[in-house]
Amino acid sequence: MSLEIRIVLVEPVYQGNVGSVARAMKNFGYTDLVLVNPCKLEGQARAMASHARDILEGARVTSTVDEAVEGANLLVGTTGVASMKGGEHIRLPLYTVRELKDRLKGFSGTVAILFGREDDGFNNAELKSFDMLITIPTSEIYPIMNLSHAVAVVLYELSELEGGSSPLAEGFDLKLLYRHMEDLLEKINYPPHKKDKTFLMLRRIFGRAGLTPREVQTLRGIIKKIERKMGYARKDESQE
Amino acid sequence: MSLEIRIVLVEPVYQGNVGSVARAMKNFGYTDLVLVNPCKLEGQARAMASHARDILEGARVTSTVDEAVEGANLLVGTTGVASMKGGEHIRLPLYTVRELKDRLKGFSGTVAILFGREDDGFNNAELKSFDMLITIPTSEIYPIMNLSHAVAVVLYELSELEGGSSPLAEGFDLKLLYRHMEDLLEKINYPPHKKDKTFLMLRRIFGRAGLTPREVQTLRGIIKKIERKMGYARKDESQE
Repeated sequence: MSLEIRIVLVEPVYQGNVGSVARAMKNFGYTDLVLVNPCKLEGQARAMASHARDILEGARVTSTVDEAVEGANLLVGTTGVASMKGGEHIRLPLYTVRELKDRLKGFSGTVAILFGREDDGFNNAELKSFDMLITIPTSEIYPIMNLSHAVAVVLYELSELEGGSSPLAEGFDLKLLYRHMEDLLEKINYPPHKKDKTFLMLRRIFGRAGLTPREVQTLRGIIKKIERKMGYARKDESQE
Repeated sequence: MSLEIRIVLVEPVYQGNVGSVARAMKNFGYTDLVLVNPCKLEGQARAMASHARDILEGARVTSTVDEAVEGANLLVGTTGVASMKGGEHIRLPLYTVRELKDRLKGFSGTVAILFGREDDGFNNAELKSFDMLITIPTSEIYPIMNLSHAVAVVLYELSELEGGSSPLAEGFDLKLLYRHMEDLLEKINYPPHKKDKTFLMLRRIFGRAGLTPREVQTLRGIIKKIERKMGYARKDESQE
């Protein structure tokens, strides 16, 4: 069982950065690079990739983040501390890359690590779709790192990880679990104005916990029992 | 007494790299940059420095390594593992950057960390003049990192800045939450022979998630709403 790391660059603007990211990946032994709507990749990207042209040329290009993270078990967004100020997501736990490493110990599966646009980072919808958010501790005076520097530091830190024996649950099963939780909040008349925030919080708790397939199954079993006790029967119960 | 870090670039060839190094230094809160016989520094260096132009423009330029390390208490050379092969210096202890950090704990003074030419690294005379040699553990397939990536990783490791971690919930509140969960399993007639295992699983999931105080509060709120919907009223509700 192994732990695979996928690097996803969302709409990178500077081709030199993309090439540099490919080089940093090869330096630390990683090959799985996905680019969402990248800028044009020409001579400068190849020059910065240096001996990692194979990574650059082998990169998968997609038009959506959803396609980019297909098959991944855990979605980890990277963000600068500064960009968290003022947003509603400021209350979400923000982990350091070292804390991510510690949490991933013992797990196996594919972890997608997403890096936002050089100038704008991620939008709110993207941030909400991630299981975890991480940052690199930096100076407050100038916290915005160059994209390829951030990738290099993250991969340097994670390259110590070895695969473990606990498999991460499939993204598809997690989606069903989350939908089930969202249903439940509705059924217990959870205050509508709080519902979205609370649901997002639940996602993040279970996301960063790194659930195994068995745990997902058991959690869904608990929710079904709760629903039954409350007098609901799920229509799709026969299929489960 | 403090520990100061000085970055010394020996005969850097690409001005973009010098600018990128300045940026990485400012990202991690360092300012002391010395350039030994650098290439011309023009627009591209400033562009890559971004908001760290002050570091770039404040860099001291010297014509020898000796001048560059004047006043430093410890000279640390950085090198790729590959470039150590075959030379007489191969018998010198080669530390990882993390080992350097561990060794520097408790010391104060100025540590000069030297980075060699992008293509040729250091010559033997230079290598011999260093107090220590460090390397960044990389893939054997492509161990040569971009200069500014190497600086970023070294400074990331050496910087003792604290990350933006969320506060963890108090043990007492967690205990209440867990008791509440255990109650709930009972109330939904969870099979007795499975109950203990499932409860333990829940504890481990929430335990490793590292809940914040706010998350504990919200989870308890959800459970209370579930109980109410099922027709239970908690005796101690008035206290909550």
